[in-house]
Amino acid sequence: MTEQDRRPRRREARRGAAPTHSGVKPLELKIPVTEMLSEEGVNAIHQASMRLLKDVGILIVDYPPAAETFKQNSASVEWVDRVHTYMNGDTSEVKGHLVRLDEETLMHFIHQVPSTFTQLARNPTNSLTVGGRNMIFAPVYGPPFVGGLDFGRRRATLEDFHNFAKLAYMAEHIHHNGGTLVEPNDIDVRERHLDMLMAHITLSDKCFMGSVTHADNARDTVTMARIVFGEEAMQQSPATLSLINASSPMRFDDRMFGALEVYARARQAVLVTPFLIAGAMSPSTMAATLAQQNAEALFGICYAQMLNPGTPCIYGSFLANIDMKSGAPCFGTPEDALALYGGAQMARHYKIPYRSGGNFTGSRIPDAQSGYESASTMWPTVQAGVNFVLHAAGWLEGGLISGYEKFVIDHELCGIMARFVNGIGLTDEDFAWDAYDETPPGGHFLGSSHTMRHYSTAFYQHNVFNMDNYEKWESEGSHDTYKRANAVYKKMLKDYEPPAIDPATVDELNAFVAQRRTELRDRKSRTEWKK
Amino acid sequence: MTEQDRRPRRREARRGAAPTHSGVKPLELKIPVTEMLSEEGVNAIHQASMRLLKDVGILIVDYPPAAETFKQNSASVEWVDRVHTYMNGDTSEVKGHLVRLDEETLMHFIHQVPSTFTQLARNPTNSLTVGGRNMIFAPVYGPPFVGGLDFGRRRATLEDFHNFAKLAYMAEHIHHNGGTLVEPNDIDVRERHLDMLMAHITLSDKCFMGSVTHADNARDTVTMARIVFGEEAMQQSPATLSLINASSPMRFDDRMFGALEVYARARQAVLVTPFLIAGAMSPSTMAATLAQQNAEALFGICYAQMLNPGTPCIYGSFLANIDMKSGAPCFGTPEDALALYGGAQMARHYKIPYRSGGNFTGSRIPDAQSGYESASTMWPTVQAGVNFVLHAAGWLEGGLISGYEKFVIDHELCGIMARFVNGIGLTDEDFAWDAYDETPPGGHFLGSSHTMRHYSTAFYQHNVFNMDNYEKWESEGSHDTYKRANAVYKKMLKDYEPPAIDPATVDELNAFVAQRRTELRDRKSRTEWKK
Repeated sequence: MTEQDRRPRRREARRGAAPTHSGVKPLELKIPVTEMLSEEGVNAIHQASMRLLKDVGILIVDYPPAAETFKQNSASVEWVDRVHTYMNGDTSEVKGHLVRLDEETLMHFIHQVPSTFTQLARNPTNSLTVGGRNMIFAPVYGPPFVGGLDFGRRRATLEDFHNFAKLAYMAEHIHHNGGTLVEPNDIDVRERHLDMLMAHITLSDKCFMGSVTHADNARDTVTMARIVFGEEAMQQSPATLSLINASSPMRFDDRMFGALEVYARARQAVLVTPFLIAGAMSPSTMAATLAQQNAEALFGICYAQMLNPGTPCIYGSFLANIDMKSGAPCFGTPEDALALYGGAQMARHYKIPYRSGGNFTGSRIPDAQSGYESASTMWPTVQAGVNFVLHAAGWLEGGLISGYEKFVIDHELCGIMARFVNGIGLTDEDFAWDAYDETPPGGHFLGSSHTMRHYSTAFYQHNVFNMDNYEKWESEGSHDTYKRANAVYKKMLKDYEPPAIDPATVDELNAFVAQRRTELRDRKSRTEWKK
Repeated sequence: MTEQDRRPRRREARRGAAPTHSGVKPLELKIPVTEMLSEEGVNAIHQASMRLLKDVGILIVDYPPAAETFKQNSASVEWVDRVHTYMNGDTSEVKGHLVRLDEETLMHFIHQVPSTFTQLARNPTNSLTVGGRNMIFAPVYGPPFVGGLDFGRRRATLEDFHNFAKLAYMAEHIHHNGGTLVEPNDIDVRERHLDMLMAHITLSDKCFMGSVTHADNARDTVTMARIVFGEEAMQQSPATLSLINASSPMRFDDRMFGALEVYARARQAVLVTPFLIAGAMSPSTMAATLAQQNAEALFGICYAQMLNPGTPCIYGSFLANIDMKSGAPCFGTPEDALALYGGAQMARHYKIPYRSGGNFTGSRIPDAQSGYESASTMWPTVQAGVNFVLHAAGWLEGGLISGYEKFVIDHELCGIMARFVNGIGLTDEDFAWDAYDETPPGGHFLGSSHTMRHYSTAFYQHNVFNMDNYEKWESEGSHDTYKRANAVYKKMLKDYEPPAIDPATVDELNAFVAQRRTELRDRKSRTEWKK
């Protein structure tokens, strides 16, 4: 990253920053990624998704500009307005522009996606390169509720958002501050994005995500990022990354495509993610689900490239499956794990960074189920070589709850993974020859020089998990992990100190936010920020 | 398996059996196994272990017959009797036969190990083929304690043993009944093996493990198996599988090698497993730990082949690491996962079935830590292609506790894995073309014919985990997984019905057991069973 394009006061701000961490680095996978599909399998899914895009098509709802863009790029666009009747007599409205795309057109644009890009952080040592062998952990995104041992579950507030922003900043193995850590329900829905962006920018100096709830909110995100990073820097490298969900199956709407357009034109990174609960938003079979996911993700990415070739994009996957008995979404299932691996191979096939996984669970509290399901998603996530892992900490109840304790428990697994990806060292020192000179058959290695040399770094050191024996554990109150994690997150919040920021930047941000609040409250149209 | 060698009453017994299950089949891995090491890495570990066997050697303690066997097979055998002084002044006694083995001698015997074998079960539909792409789950082995929500932790009794034998029999995804499910502490230690064997044979009709606590106990195991299976059948295929632990580092003792000798001569399967807590029984680096594990496992397997070439063997790995702060063993760590993968590659390199993994945790109860750690061992276990997974259900507190609830919670993960190993189907039906004909963009697939066709089998159905929303969960008592599992295991025990067994077989077993009890109580030497 270059700083030459920044105005002096921003350079000042960065020099003045005294980050808690010496700099966040993505994990770098030194282990082989696991390939679940054969080359033929990858090709079969590619071909199936081409067929879906050509024959079924993608419906664009309430957003004619996108339909026009596709039309100008030789896609077939048809206006449809009909009522579909299902086998069982149910109906649904199908209204919008149906876009059909051939392989050649699609792939022309897909080839323009950069295979890696660097997202700028306010503290440049926290900037993150996305793609390749890099893996980035970001917190849970989107829950309307918070959960905790002290209070159960309640609707989240801005104070909760601040707390999770602080936890994300403090957490050593969380590389990215994420986006909608919780929904701040106590703030007017029209203004929330301003408060969330202010929190990410001022309470942390890691990378953050932009707002996608309206095209104007995307514009606000870009403006606030420009106040911090400068427009020229953001043309070179994105300072925001934003989550564009398909309205699956085979559909995008004005809200998401409106936001995508703003970000693409500003050359900010977008993460295009089909939202698939297999059995409902996609068929119940994983091959079809992968083909549909591929079709939807590539379609959104293609749109970004049509708007601004070379726009940094991430191929997203959010994939769960429905419980066929209750209709509830299920997490940590074998089907989801398989599809997670398959999706990674598809993204690699197109040389596009991949987002998937997280510490997913359907459980409402961090209990045993939560542990099994979370780990059962994270192991495939890491071994698939996912580049951007949203929901890596804090997720509960299928994404409805941001859990305080869950955040720090998940963080333990993130730390475990940070060691795992280094693989097995095979140097002479790793073979410990001198340890065998010092240790006889039947002896022990505790006191050998080799063990002493590796004492402090040999093994992952636990933070929340503990290995105390039953007697010690019982004498200290028989606390389960949930209880122990309660103390851990509270200590983190207590120890929190904000990273330094230039007061002039904060002033300008506040002035812009004040202007926008006024406009939003008075229902006036948005004025571009000029200072 | 052939039945022609059985006496009529045994064939009768088997015809009379009315197993709860229609037959237990190992999982068959249709997914690729994950290779963590390169070919060069595998070779480097092989070479390092050859160097350890040649230069350091393995100490055989209190068992001259084994030293003699190695000597007769051109190994270098040296009597050592010295006191070793560590760097810090601590001492340990090194007394026994030190056996040094060259690569050529070792590999001559290693090449005689069968790459697969079938362990006979009393119900022939439950016989299990070990090796290749097969994966077998067996319960926890060895804990002196039981744990449960109703009582906490207490010393295990024979009643507990019976309960776990019943649970193992009932559990759909547990293929093998295992061995020392708990230590029946209320039974005299000399006689316990008789009660445990009787329980496995009469309460279940799945495969079981033999006793290794004394050579005579191994003889009792073989005799009881012969009463059930007949000697000739057991020459063709083993009816027992027994766990031979190295007394690591680089040491075997009379107890384990004595039992191994009995089993090898009776052509019964042995599972040779170094017992490694890295940092204590092996160096703190994984390359050295893998090389040492390889040396110890191959040494024990080599001994079995020297005694009886072609004896079915499993290459075992039990590998944890020490917490360098507290000295406690840690489970589910990144280091253990890496070594688990590496060990699988070594065993495959020699074409020997591999044992490793399990639902390991250091936690004392099935809480979140327990879930993360268990799953963090089981995912590598399954993806490494482990053939025999001991401790697949019930393990708590580093193996000190057999947990009732833990058993059924772990069993859920076993069920998840049973689906995962099937991989991603890629047939036309899997691509669900007709579902897209019936479902418009923006619609839902719930009512499509394709979904209806796959309704009942599309996704794994949970047994202990549940996906209820917060309101339903709260209204039903806010039970965590631990509490839910309590009801599940109790229902299983309540529903238990023993598999049929020929009364004449039971009579003979009882007569033999009575004879042995008398001998053991009177401290008389063992008489071979003749009927």
